[in-house]
Amino acid sequence: MITVDEALEALFALVTALPSEEVPLAEALGRVLASDVAARRDQPPFAASAMDGYALRNDEVRHGARFEVIAEAAAGHGFDGAVGAGQAVRIFTGAPLPKGASRVIIQEDVTRKGDGITLNEDLDPKPHIRPKGCDFRIGEVMSAPRILRPADIALLASMNCATVSVTRRPVVALISTGDELVMPGDSPGPDQIIASNTFGLKALLESHGAKARILPIARDRIPSLETAFGLAAGADLVVTIGGASVGDHDLVGQVAGQMGMDRAFYKVAMRPGKPLMAGRMGAAAMVGLPGNPVSAMVCGQVFLAPMIRAMLGLGARRTSRLTARLAAPLPPNGPREHYMRARLTPEGLVAEGRQDSSLLSVLAEADALLVRPVNDPARTTGETVEYLDF
Amino acid sequence: MITVDEALEALFALVTALPSEEVPLAEALGRVLASDVAARRDQPPFAASAMDGYALRNDEVRHGARFEVIAEAAAGHGFDGAVGAGQAVRIFTGAPLPKGASRVIIQEDVTRKGDGITLNEDLDPKPHIRPKGCDFRIGEVMSAPRILRPADIALLASMNCATVSVTRRPVVALISTGDELVMPGDSPGPDQIIASNTFGLKALLESHGAKARILPIARDRIPSLETAFGLAAGADLVVTIGGASVGDHDLVGQVAGQMGMDRAFYKVAMRPGKPLMAGRMGAAAMVGLPGNPVSAMVCGQVFLAPMIRAMLGLGARRTSRLTARLAAPLPPNGPREHYMRARLTPEGLVAEGRQDSSLLSVLAEADALLVRPVNDPARTTGETVEYLDF
Repeated sequence: MITVDEALEALFALVTALPSEEVPLAEALGRVLASDVAARRDQPPFAASAMDGYALRNDEVRHGARFEVIAEAAAGHGFDGAVGAGQAVRIFTGAPLPKGASRVIIQEDVTRKGDGITLNEDLDPKPHIRPKGCDFRIGEVMSAPRILRPADIALLASMNCATVSVTRRPVVALISTGDELVMPGDSPGPDQIIASNTFGLKALLESHGAKARILPIARDRIPSLETAFGLAAGADLVVTIGGASVGDHDLVGQVAGQMGMDRAFYKVAMRPGKPLMAGRMGAAAMVGLPGNPVSAMVCGQVFLAPMIRAMLGLGARRTSRLTARLAAPLPPNGPREHYMRARLTPEGLVAEGRQDSSLLSVLAEADALLVRPVNDPARTTGETVEYLDF
Repeated sequence: MITVDEALEALFALVTALPSEEVPLAEALGRVLASDVAARRDQPPFAASAMDGYALRNDEVRHGARFEVIAEAAAGHGFDGAVGAGQAVRIFTGAPLPKGASRVIIQEDVTRKGDGITLNEDLDPKPHIRPKGCDFRIGEVMSAPRILRPADIALLASMNCATVSVTRRPVVALISTGDELVMPGDSPGPDQIIASNTFGLKALLESHGAKARILPIARDRIPSLETAFGLAAGADLVVTIGGASVGDHDLVGQVAGQMGMDRAFYKVAMRPGKPLMAGRMGAAAMVGLPGNPVSAMVCGQVFLAPMIRAMLGLGARRTSRLTARLAAPLPPNGPREHYMRARLTPEGLVAEGRQDSSLLSVLAEADALLVRPVNDPARTTGETVEYLDF
């Protein structure tokens, strides 16, 4: 058996960062910026008023000083002339500061009569001018790779980017295997259950930036598996669920091998989800996950999500772990890294009572996977432990 | 001026939870479950083997006991007969447990010769049987409302839900106003800048479950604003950006009023983003945000995101706040609630040095909005403060 980290290294060796594609900025949320973007302009492109008020010469500012209002400057409509001695320009937020002006007096600080203003007492001392380029200057860079958040989208718009170069989404083909499975909406026979793993994994992988395709269920027969693998053509990653362990009925490895998979079979020292199969299969990476629903989802989080991030150009790193206070004691762990379903409570992390890998109801109530290292000793309430957000 | 909480109460009064729609389960990630879902079956629907091994009678288990293997039971293909004294059925993970059997001996714990098995020493004491319904029973409920996560999708599949009833996404129409604005990709004139607020807000609101439409920029003229409001028809929420303050050039309130907005004008005691206008306008709620980019995004997070959640049926509550250690001291706050751009560091929260509401570059580097209550005293390093995840 190999460790989880060794398995991850082997999986990272199967994938590379995907090429980029250009998408409209309005569709770029959550996508990974593929190359640095340099600003093509200064923002603001001119010194601008930060308030509604009057633009005038700073050296003339004192209580009781009077100015003639000679023009108006609004956002989008600057005043082309210059502000001379004894002159002021009525100015609005965002308007370019006229030549000659070096301060904006806010409108609350003046008394206006006709075309004249008089400065009040206790003037706001700030100049209320945004210097040209104070947000960013030509050539300033938003660096890649970066998962684009709403504020990034706003900044890219402001830099005048109508489209943006992002890493193509990895396409994942999901194949459930097993004679016992039927699709949701079908009528299961007495010995059958509903295929749930492909639906859970599609959602999980798409939340990490992949595009997932659910393929027809493959039966426990060679031609059925061959059909399913054939339908996976074009995917960057082919994931089978079930049929990866050593039981007599596990045909997936055999068929994948026949179809050209450069096979590597790993037993990973982890709970849940020990059996794991991986290799290259033509242009795609192929991973075989265990069929127990919780094992499949935990392996998706621990192995597939980092593979997706690597394909997105975000680097080959395991999922970052958070820490929390333990709210209930834990027994010692055995020789396998254990990902325990747990809940975050105001008192800290509490491992769920039932950890069987078939229990989706427990997984759905969990919001954390508490990570127990190999041979971790018993832990007491109040100790700090690591977990994955789930 | 009213407080942020008073403004939020007024905004919640403008919206109601939207009706539900049925979507395919594979498209339900991140949607809000609109009504409770009861399981239509037990899972597993039969007592099932949890391992590959041999099903037999527990009362016959002892070291050296021999059994005749009379049949095989695989997932999807149970054995219809019964297991009698001295008999065993070869069984695989997920297969229904045959009648008469009350324990599964894992295959590693037996020695097989032809059609017979002998039990080894030091048998694994567990029965390795998953009782019928141990995951969930008919009638067990996934309760609404609930934002559907990947594990929920898997559980719903397992419950045999092919489609699911979710709250319709709120449709938001976004209108930027101002003669100074051009769309990304355009060539701005010397007094112009790029419209960025609609792009940032679209991304922000869609990350909270809305569907946002960017409308053409409205100019600072009544007919242009009338056209824009006309194009917003059908939206649940109409958001204007800019033109909501008290300057001479602020026409939005005037035109919205002419077009039937039941007008309420709020000055909210907050920084950034003081001006805020809101009301009902026909079938839609209407909110006018300030035009400074950071103000618009912060108001989006503080006011619009909770309105979206309320429309999604998640309740009328402000965005939940997190707490962190302060990594650098802060001066006292004034009479307005201040949402400071901040970064989460290993040492704790650090407020950005530049807090001007025009600086998108600072916003894009921030990952938190540090909340300073009205008249909050100076804070020292190490104190606990509240923030919004950004």
